Amino acid sequence: MQYKRIFVAVAMSAIIPATALAANIPLDPTNSALDPQSPYATLYLPQNAPTSVDQVGPDAWTHAYGNPQHNAAFSVAKDAPQWIRDGVRWNFPEARAWPLSDSHPYGEKVDGLKEALPVQTQFYGNALGVSVVRGVVYAESDDMFAYAINAQTGKLIWRSSPVENNLMSNPLVVGNHVYLSAGSVSFNFANVMKYAKHPRQAGRGKDISYNGIFCLNRENGQLLWSFKTAGDAMPTPAYAEQSLFISTGDGNIYRISAADGKELWKTHVGGIANMSSPVVMDGRVYVSMSVIPGLYALDVKTGKVLWKGEIPGAVNTGMGDVSPAAADGIVVMDTVADAKLVDGKPTMDTVVRAFNGTTGKVLWTVNLGRGARIPAFKGGVPMIHDGTVYVGTPVTSDYTAINLHSGKVEWTWKVPNPGPAGAGRGAPTFYRGMLYISTGPDIYAVDPKNGRLMHRYHVGGRFGIVNPTIVGGTMYLGNSWDWVNAVPVKDVNPNFSESGK
Amino acid sequence: MQYKRIFVAVAMSAIIPATALAANIPLDPTNSALDPQSPYATLYLPQNAPTSVDQVGPDAWTHAYGNPQHNAAFSVAKDAPQWIRDGVRWNFPEARAWPLSDSHPYGEKVDGLKEALPVQTQFYGNALGVSVVRGVVYAESDDMFAYAINAQTGKLIWRSSPVENNLMSNPLVVGNHVYLSAGSVSFNFANVMKYAKHPRQAGRGKDISYNGIFCLNRENGQLLWSFKTAGDAMPTPAYAEQSLFISTGDGNIYRISAADGKELWKTHVGGIANMSSPVVMDGRVYVSMSVIPGLYALDVKTGKVLWKGEIPGAVNTGMGDVSPAAADGIVVMDTVADAKLVDGKPTMDTVVRAFNGTTGKVLWTVNLGRGARIPAFKGGVPMIHDGTVYVGTPVTSDYTAINLHSGKVEWTWKVPNPGPAGAGRGAPTFYRGMLYISTGPDIYAVDPKNGRLMHRYHVGGRFGIVNPTIVGGTMYLGNSWDWVNAVPVKDVNPNFSESGK
Repeated sequence: MQYKRIFVAVAMSAIIPATALAANIPLDPTNSALDPQSPYATLYLPQNAPTSVDQVGPDAWTHAYGNPQHNAAFSVAKDAPQWIRDGVRWNFPEARAWPLSDSHPYGEKVDGLKEALPVQTQFYGNALGVSVVRGVVYAESDDMFAYAINAQTGKLIWRSSPVENNLMSNPLVVGNHVYLSAGSVSFNFANVMKYAKHPRQAGRGKDISYNGIFCLNRENGQLLWSFKTAGDAMPTPAYAEQSLFISTGDGNIYRISAADGKELWKTHVGGIANMSSPVVMDGRVYVSMSVIPGLYALDVKTGKVLWKGEIPGAVNTGMGDVSPAAADGIVVMDTVADAKLVDGKPTMDTVVRAFNGTTGKVLWTVNLGRGARIPAFKGGVPMIHDGTVYVGTPVTSDYTAINLHSGKVEWTWKVPNPGPAGAGRGAPTFYRGMLYISTGPDIYAVDPKNGRLMHRYHVGGRFGIVNPTIVGGTMYLGNSWDWVNAVPVKDVNPNFSESGK
Repeated sequence: MQYKRIFVAVAMSAIIPATALAANIPLDPTNSALDPQSPYATLYLPQNAPTSVDQVGPDAWTHAYGNPQHNAAFSVAKDAPQWIRDGVRWNFPEARAWPLSDSHPYGEKVDGLKEALPVQTQFYGNALGVSVVRGVVYAESDDMFAYAINAQTGKLIWRSSPVENNLMSNPLVVGNHVYLSAGSVSFNFANVMKYAKHPRQAGRGKDISYNGIFCLNRENGQLLWSFKTAGDAMPTPAYAEQSLFISTGDGNIYRISAADGKELWKTHVGGIANMSSPVVMDGRVYVSMSVIPGLYALDVKTGKVLWKGEIPGAVNTGMGDVSPAAADGIVVMDTVADAKLVDGKPTMDTVVRAFNGTTGKVLWTVNLGRGARIPAFKGGVPMIHDGTVYVGTPVTSDYTAINLHSGKVEWTWKVPNPGPAGAGRGAPTFYRGMLYISTGPDIYAVDPKNGRLMHRYHVGGRFGIVNPTIVGGTMYLGNSWDWVNAVPVKDVNPNFSESGK
């Protein structure tokens, strides 16, 4: 394999007088400028880039889960290459790949299975699914690398680690840029102390990790610029109007220029952004926060808060975990709520609420039911398709279909063998009449009309908050075991056929 | 450069059916078994190993800072190689090396200089100094790698990243083993909540990082076994009696077998171990903890707590940061204490106390004075040489010499230009009549008789809690900018001559 390492601005021998180093420091030096042999040096393998990609996947990736409605499904043209219509199968091991066939997470012996499963999602592999744009799969991992992988062959095009931090997002891809967001769920002792006295002043990620947005050259993974933030920038930003919208662990919402990272406005709403990614619809950006629970609608132009939506009884971390889904002028949000002991055991509800996107008026509220308290990311990411909301919850390990306009529950499907940490965090994907759900070690095909299980496909490892990203006949998924996987849709749904549109 | 990658147990192509993976999982699989091209795969360059090393450095490294008295100075024989007596100079860039000539830490723009300096120490490069054993320099870094470097040439022999966590210790080296300890200073939200209600139950590192002791093959860096802990295992363990003594972020002290990691005893004392490394003297292990501040003496055989020493007014994090030094039956400990506002600004003292190692009786107490509250690691690591304690404090950025037996202060020397985060955290090193201190970007030679500054040598970057490790005519130091540096002692002290012993 031929490696092409880039940005070797300074050729250094191992022996350098300390005083002899150049004084001219670039704005964002990466280690690759110092040592091209460093494992973190950007690795670029141009020979693995696809040659013809026009018909494979969307032209851009602007939101977590692909779009404001969170339905990451993209058909291909009739004359698209045969491989994408038939589906390809590969498993790409990322830098810390854990054996897919090992059902035991890394820390099980000391943390117990229930905690170790979500810990591995948060601190080991891919927390979310992947982005696919024009023949290339883009993934971010807690192994601190971002990857660009050939969608057909599963071969690495580049990997880049521009910052020492977990990367827990869908990479956004627009034009020649790939945008990463960096942040971890860590508090240092000073912020623990602050939280004990003044919960509303505590900031996650402050003085404990290197947070912010990192913009890479899409072709080769080179760092172009960064926008650094004090609190963590864990959620995927949203792209709209040549800008990125960012929420952080110290309660700030930013709009920055997507061209150069220049700050355009900043609004402090308070609370903590967990994994909830902003979504943009009709000139408003919707952001959901934890600790001071709330769904905020801000004016895209000015950053002014237009309204704040609440869900009664929302627990501390609930609303900032889940990304709101938006379609047809409606914003759908859910949270775990009303935590209390039942028969001496901690339990909670999951509550879904729909808001009028313009006014913030509550349209309907559905309680998905009570279950045992589960660890870590506690909600399910909602997806909207054609007037129906599909949403899971790890509290009861169910997926539920709800009419977007009336709030009427259409059906509920229970995930088989959800395990002690619960299943149902990821958004489903609707494609050609079927609903696809990745949770635990499996992918399910569920009939969207009635919630009937049609087929199950076993991958291994664990899907954390992962949605299947479907392009033509292939499904792409990252996972907590630090792999990116390609699976033919027909393996998950034997009746599937990508006949083209 | 020829790379020899090891442990390629499974040769995988990029395309693997998910179901085809082997079911036979090793006890501690590393990613290198899956993908030898992974940046985390153990890299072994046997051609860089020294050929004759018998006279260069000690035979083993059993404690943080080299020994219970923390004086990392090792003379060489008259017939030792010329290079080690003359001193060598090299700068080895680790995986995320930041330019040495850049005085600005990574996060300065968002965190401010005062916070960004210690943050870079904690989360970027080498928090402590290095271990040197028989011609090889061993270092641990927050870049998640451990390194073995040829002490003469500065060339890499191996690097290994057996766990996804910060490595903030001196590697211990005994026989064919290198012992790493893994832990970060992170709390997750659940433990923040717990701290707010029940401070004594909160555990650092729990359910947020992969903690424990990792034992490598000294020759090639291969992972041999690990001992995993729920709380962080950030401090360097102590080695004695074929065992390791470990303190953790959830208040536990362990004795494990150095041969295979089997637990021999476990004692819960409560509180949080920060960077305070246990020390073993005369059949007792001394461990200092934060949050519930205390210095504990435990029986090496049984783990029974024999006595607990306190320092009045010790602030939360104080006692668990600093490693106690022990010599002549006396244990010396210091902490920041008595935090209060003075003229509206937060201030604190640094208090040094000596205990009778057998009985725990307080022998003397010295207050090093009051200064502004400084961030992060707040104490200075004491060193004992020939009846004198040498100890710094970043609160006043002084080093002080105190008679070990009487507690009489001999002199105080102020670090010039300590910067906003304070200077004076690392232990000094006494060698051939001179005291060497590494703090900030510089190394100082100070006359141990009177505290007079003799010479200053500029390296760049920043020394966090780093002591100079001196072997013959060469000084070895890790730093927060992610470099390992070799400096001839005569560059720091022009009058120095290594004439042999």
